[in-house]
Amino acid sequence: MKNIYMDHVATNPLHPDVLDVMLPYLKENYGNPLSMYELGMIAREAIENARAQTAALINSTPREIVFTSNGAESNNFALKGIAYASQDKGKHIIVSKVEHHSILNSARFLEKQGFVVTYLRVDKHGLVDPEEVRKAITDETILISIIHASPEIGTIQPIAKIGKIAREKGIIFHTDAVASAGNIPIDVETMNIDLMTIAAHQFYGPKGAAALYVKQGVRIVPLIYGGIQEGGRRAGTENVSAIVGMGKAAEMAKSAMEKRINHVKPLRDSMIENALKISNVILTGHPEQRLPGHASFVVEFIEGEAMLMLLAGNGIYSASGSACSSKALKSSPVLLSIGTPVHMAQGSVVFTIGEGTTEENITYFNKTFPRVITRLREISPYSRGWGETEDPSCTAKK
Amino acid sequence: MKNIYMDHVATNPLHPDVLDVMLPYLKENYGNPLSMYELGMIAREAIENARAQTAALINSTPREIVFTSNGAESNNFALKGIAYASQDKGKHIIVSKVEHHSILNSARFLEKQGFVVTYLRVDKHGLVDPEEVRKAITDETILISIIHASPEIGTIQPIAKIGKIAREKGIIFHTDAVASAGNIPIDVETMNIDLMTIAAHQFYGPKGAAALYVKQGVRIVPLIYGGIQEGGRRAGTENVSAIVGMGKAAEMAKSAMEKRINHVKPLRDSMIENALKISNVILTGHPEQRLPGHASFVVEFIEGEAMLMLLAGNGIYSASGSACSSKALKSSPVLLSIGTPVHMAQGSVVFTIGEGTTEENITYFNKTFPRVITRLREISPYSRGWGETEDPSCTAKK
Repeated sequence: MKNIYMDHVATNPLHPDVLDVMLPYLKENYGNPLSMYELGMIAREAIENARAQTAALINSTPREIVFTSNGAESNNFALKGIAYASQDKGKHIIVSKVEHHSILNSARFLEKQGFVVTYLRVDKHGLVDPEEVRKAITDETILISIIHASPEIGTIQPIAKIGKIAREKGIIFHTDAVASAGNIPIDVETMNIDLMTIAAHQFYGPKGAAALYVKQGVRIVPLIYGGIQEGGRRAGTENVSAIVGMGKAAEMAKSAMEKRINHVKPLRDSMIENALKISNVILTGHPEQRLPGHASFVVEFIEGEAMLMLLAGNGIYSASGSACSSKALKSSPVLLSIGTPVHMAQGSVVFTIGEGTTEENITYFNKTFPRVITRLREISPYSRGWGETEDPSCTAKK
Repeated sequence: MKNIYMDHVATNPLHPDVLDVMLPYLKENYGNPLSMYELGMIAREAIENARAQTAALINSTPREIVFTSNGAESNNFALKGIAYASQDKGKHIIVSKVEHHSILNSARFLEKQGFVVTYLRVDKHGLVDPEEVRKAITDETILISIIHASPEIGTIQPIAKIGKIAREKGIIFHTDAVASAGNIPIDVETMNIDLMTIAAHQFYGPKGAAALYVKQGVRIVPLIYGGIQEGGRRAGTENVSAIVGMGKAAEMAKSAMEKRINHVKPLRDSMIENALKISNVILTGHPEQRLPGHASFVVEFIEGEAMLMLLAGNGIYSASGSACSSKALKSSPVLLSIGTPVHMAQGSVVFTIGEGTTEENITYFNKTFPRVITRLREISPYSRGWGETEDPSCTAKK
């Protein structure tokens, strides 16, 4: 049996059409975009074409797109870049408790440099209340950064409302849209977004290409200093082939978005409906305001890692919470922040499907998932010492 | 006529054997290295294999290799990472005046954060005197960063001697080996190196993969915070295919190094010998201690950009000093630091050859370069206003 990939939030296969446009830049078009001769010009034009394609996906202008190497880099760039550029105006930053590690750990780094960070709580569905954002704002606030959609629980935040509040107050607003961009519509204009992180491999583009959208007029200090690449905002020889691939993937995502959503949503709904028939299985995240291909659960009395392994043994590839908790067994801060009891947070599992997922796959999943849970509950005592299984490599990371 | 690529210091073609090992990771092996199932394991093992191959090139251990996205990132990571990790010991940093922009501009950023930087002068060949390094050391010095080989003038620094002084004084020593690693032998042990930047595209590997060697026991603060990738030292989903390509390219560079050097060196010597027969053409950089495929000159009474364009028109691809001055006409700080008069620094040209360069190419070059100079001198008045041609996009970069 062929394995069924239900971990699109971890990464995606590169679309063959995307690889096709990348290949010339891994072969004959190897020039450095800064070089003045034809070979350089070819690379330069390819990057500018990709910039326009990427901008079109989110309704920005091309010059507002800064290419980076991955979502974590864009998130670090956004937080530190705005903090250093605006520190004369104030040193207060607002984030939520359900941000990605690259935001939370950047925030902690900035705290060590004298910045003050407010970590906003979320409700049981993982939603940030825009009014809580408004209340957290002080005269010292220079930046608000709220994740668009959670890779772990799928919840989509009310970004446009939060952005509107930020704009009213004249505060720069960043959103980490790694899990959402390319998968659901985003318009930086109507959603009042000043900075946004997007990553190509989340919409069938290559690993190694991502971007930070920086609204025209927003001052930002580079994370990577050096040459004049990316308008002096991000130095280093460009990963031309990956950037070209990102542009193509963005173009495809834009034109195929509705079709892709209409494909995954009913399949995902079937997964949720069936999974919730199993005893002591709870949906995490918001029931409706969630990524269309995203189904996430906590399963009582079962360890996430064991579940992943037995699912994989049955040909289903899935994840357990964040990338970090996939490798360790630490309780996910996101799950704890939505009020999941510690013993249940250990039993987290995330299924994310994509354009290649078939009805047959879902039928198989709906049959297999309950069997895996039943089998694990047979062999697993109810109350083993979850807390002792923490992996220090994850906990002590920073 | 096929164009002749003499700009290997800007970037290199990807070796076809390197592309071959990359392709499976752009196709079926698309897993996220953090994922626990087989697809993740395949990616994880590929990265660890590449890490061992990269380590072997420079005689480090695999765990001392941190993969990044390009040389500029590694240089920013080294300078800022050591500065933040060691600031309780002191705030003084030593670099040279012939460093890459990614070092110089990181140093300037750190100056704004309260660090003090000494910029060491060089001699007329671009060499740093190790005794000048020793004299510059204070009780506050936490880091010395000296470029290994200059991409602009080819000069190779006495890194082992400088490293020995740093080690005697207990100061961390970084070298930017972007232009040298993979092209000439480097042994981090015998050369007393604590941190070193290397970039895959400089030795026929892909753009988008580079590394920072960090000697075991050296504490460094991440530039990119987030997940547990690279042992918590560099976050973000790994660019698996590019990393795999870097490993393969490193392995090939190691085994082919002697052959490659023996191929380019006599060809390069012939270029220098013939070019110096032209009136008012001067070799820049050290006559012997220079990169084996590197020939760099200043040509009096000629503008570098015009020279590049006419050379390109005659099928020869070359560069004018740094990447920055290739796009603008700013006088190169490196050329000024070795005492080149401003009006001559404008006439800089750099030829860098590689394993694909043939004797025929060199014969053609030796015939064409003098003709190009003669032609330009015919149409160019002796004393035009060089100073007025500066491009503010380069000058005002930061």
